[in-house]
Amino acid sequence: MKHIEGYLRVSLFLSEMGKLSSVFSLRHFLVLSLALNVALISRVVYEGENWREEQIRALMADASEKSAHVSISSPSPPSPSPSTSSSMAVTSTEIKDDGERVINLDHGDPTMYERFWQQMGDITTIVISGWQSMSYFSDVKNLCWFLEPEFAKQIIRLHKIVGNAVTDNYYIVVGTGSTQLFQAALYALSPPNASEPMSVVSAAPFYSSYPSVTDFLKSGLYKWAGDANNFNKDGPYIELVTSPNNPDGSIRQPVVNRSGENLVHDFAYYWPQYTPISSPADHDLMLFTVSKATGHAGMRLGWALVKDKEVAKKMTSFIELNTIGVSKDSQQRAAKILQVISDSYEPVGNPKQSGSFFHFSHSMMEERWKALRSAAKQSGLFSLPEFPSSFCNFLGQAFGSQPAFAWLKCEGGIEDCGNFLKKHKILARNGKHFGASPEYVRVSMLDRDESFNLFTKRLSSLHLSQSKDHEEESP
Amino acid sequence: MKHIEGYLRVSLFLSEMGKLSSVFSLRHFLVLSLALNVALISRVVYEGENWREEQIRALMADASEKSAHVSISSPSPPSPSPSTSSSMAVTSTEIKDDGERVINLDHGDPTMYERFWQQMGDITTIVISGWQSMSYFSDVKNLCWFLEPEFAKQIIRLHKIVGNAVTDNYYIVVGTGSTQLFQAALYALSPPNASEPMSVVSAAPFYSSYPSVTDFLKSGLYKWAGDANNFNKDGPYIELVTSPNNPDGSIRQPVVNRSGENLVHDFAYYWPQYTPISSPADHDLMLFTVSKATGHAGMRLGWALVKDKEVAKKMTSFIELNTIGVSKDSQQRAAKILQVISDSYEPVGNPKQSGSFFHFSHSMMEERWKALRSAAKQSGLFSLPEFPSSFCNFLGQAFGSQPAFAWLKCEGGIEDCGNFLKKHKILARNGKHFGASPEYVRVSMLDRDESFNLFTKRLSSLHLSQSKDHEEESP
Repeated sequence: MKHIEGYLRVSLFLSEMGKLSSVFSLRHFLVLSLALNVALISRVVYEGENWREEQIRALMADASEKSAHVSISSPSPPSPSPSTSSSMAVTSTEIKDDGERVINLDHGDPTMYERFWQQMGDITTIVISGWQSMSYFSDVKNLCWFLEPEFAKQIIRLHKIVGNAVTDNYYIVVGTGSTQLFQAALYALSPPNASEPMSVVSAAPFYSSYPSVTDFLKSGLYKWAGDANNFNKDGPYIELVTSPNNPDGSIRQPVVNRSGENLVHDFAYYWPQYTPISSPADHDLMLFTVSKATGHAGMRLGWALVKDKEVAKKMTSFIELNTIGVSKDSQQRAAKILQVISDSYEPVGNPKQSGSFFHFSHSMMEERWKALRSAAKQSGLFSLPEFPSSFCNFLGQAFGSQPAFAWLKCEGGIEDCGNFLKKHKILARNGKHFGASPEYVRVSMLDRDESFNLFTKRLSSLHLSQSKDHEEESP
Repeated sequence: MKHIEGYLRVSLFLSEMGKLSSVFSLRHFLVLSLALNVALISRVVYEGENWREEQIRALMADASEKSAHVSISSPSPPSPSPSTSSSMAVTSTEIKDDGERVINLDHGDPTMYERFWQQMGDITTIVISGWQSMSYFSDVKNLCWFLEPEFAKQIIRLHKIVGNAVTDNYYIVVGTGSTQLFQAALYALSPPNASEPMSVVSAAPFYSSYPSVTDFLKSGLYKWAGDANNFNKDGPYIELVTSPNNPDGSIRQPVVNRSGENLVHDFAYYWPQYTPISSPADHDLMLFTVSKATGHAGMRLGWALVKDKEVAKKMTSFIELNTIGVSKDSQQRAAKILQVISDSYEPVGNPKQSGSFFHFSHSMMEERWKALRSAAKQSGLFSLPEFPSSFCNFLGQAFGSQPAFAWLKCEGGIEDCGNFLKKHKILARNGKHFGASPEYVRVSMLDRDESFNLFTKRLSSLHLSQSKDHEEESP
């Protein structure tokens, strides 16, 4: 395994948050560098020869047969780095990039958030005894009988504090991630005995999983019908409105607007680290997920806020038939995580809130977007969407969206942006999977610092001459 | 709320297991009785007026509008009870049954096992920090990339110790309960572009969820085709072989036996508390679930052992598309539970094994089946299947199956057994949902002691004169 020659520059973000920044000695660099790279190795970033976007599985299955392209750094003298000037930067790594390491930003794996929760120490730790949570049932008095009452309570509390959704007079349905709830919504909104499947549409660019998740079982109840902008079939339909949108971060409204519409609002990213919270959303069916709200993707947990009782019942039925409920262990853990977040914001004006979860993650996203825009500009090969500034009622300040994904466009005549980046060992999801042009790619902004920093560094070094040239200059 | 007049007789099963039994004073009865009934209340057993079997949801949704028929006991003098003579009995409750309390044994909620895990104390407790298990990925080198390595390790270890399944050269796919894995298997075994859906069959009586879970999305890939004994359509098909069978506990083999067959073996109940382990199963696709193996239904966790790599890949794909993996928290907790069970059986001849999980639960099932057979005999209205004795390699003794469900038949001309029992406030699942006659019902044998004991008591008091008479004699 090759060694990257590099160095680390570290600003420490202590538990009191943003009070102290210090530059470590070379000896510390060695230790930290090693620790960082152990984390890297455990992640096993690799190059899949038969890379098929959209098919994580195939990629993963092949991993065992490939060698991991992970490089271990050895120290060299520090030099100034723009990102270390921010008080939010904990581990801003500058590594001499030999161009060999594969940077996989295809998925939205929210590992960026690990650092925050590490710094929170034991306050979010949970303890579960062997005899707890054995029954299928959580609350038989609740329409959604497998919803843990404490999780429900903390969901409502957090929405009230953040102000991103109305919860009064809504039913909560818990799901194994919002992906399961999305399918539950399709099932609930499609009539059981229609002569043909209900059309499911979303305006392009749309979340790349919508078509495959809608169609993989060839259901007679519903069927993917493509870009909502081109939808002109008569009759009832389901429109998916993702806002902020995955992949491009735009704020969305329904586009079809016909009678008989059924709307599903995917609000996975309607949280203040990603976009200003302008008002509490109050649509008929709204989906949220722990993965993108707090970063706990491994819990596989989401929730729906549903206005209509019959729709909530049918969604609950779907989850009963599909998985007979949802992990109680994850629900209990999520309840604790949400509670700790809410505690830091209550009472209003709590002095701890400046170091609290949304403030922390908002600052991280702000810094990452700054770094990405700077890298794109330096390269001259890429453009990024611009977001108008608007006021966030929760954070009490105006800002422009800083989405969880970057919708990156290759300029300068590069037709297949995903392929171009892949040549430079950056894996990102091709625009065509989102119903858009292959000039675009979707890049995760939520990976660990080390990957993200390597990504912006490599991106900034790419120039037009390299678009047909696999060789990369030494930085 | 009415008070049951009753008394408790308690044999204590201490952590050293089965060493001491004692009879408590009346004062202790009061305290214990109260504690027991707090547990009962928290369970909220109720009567659903619009009881629709197969539709837990509807039942649950209505619960909030009904009053709970839970009775609180007050003490009266103890009297001998046959069940307390066993060293395995912890809390053998005798309650004067006023016939008002609804006993819900419709679902197989495995709360019987809570007692064992309580007695194990902290040894199975897990601690999860807020920053752990955040990523989607568990092991990218594994074909099933969301399978936690420690859980996989403990699955293999337990199968080797119990000897109920071969694991060498099998792929493990984890699922959100075996219900999700069942659907994953249908997806994996059905060709993607066939002209018509694959037929799915199982010999009656079959698990009542198979038809609804197969058909609820009106998939174009597969379709429920009923009782395997009557299946005569040409072409490929999937046969579900549940052994021991749910609902009737019988040991099953495939019945269609034609070329082009695809078999799914549901081994949820192939564990030594339910049936003798005669040999390690080595079929192509075998399903297991934590719910019925250890009693942890709330984890929603199952696993498949799959011989063919392509089938394992497609099953993994299904779970990716359906829920993007499986709760890591539950996998970690399950790994701990399995590890503690295995530890008690290793090294071979470990003196602790007589008080270990399978020995304990085997004895409980034995006792419960004895009590049920005695009650059925006393009533004269019911018959039960008989199971031949055979040798269990794991327990080193011969016994007849003691299934997780009783397949109870009403005799004496009672045509609808479910309806008859319902009049006496015993809820059990009607035989017709299993592709069988309504003379049968399926009754869970895995409920808490208090419910089970009340059930056998009430059952023994039913006589033919009551088959058209809603009034019940005082016991």
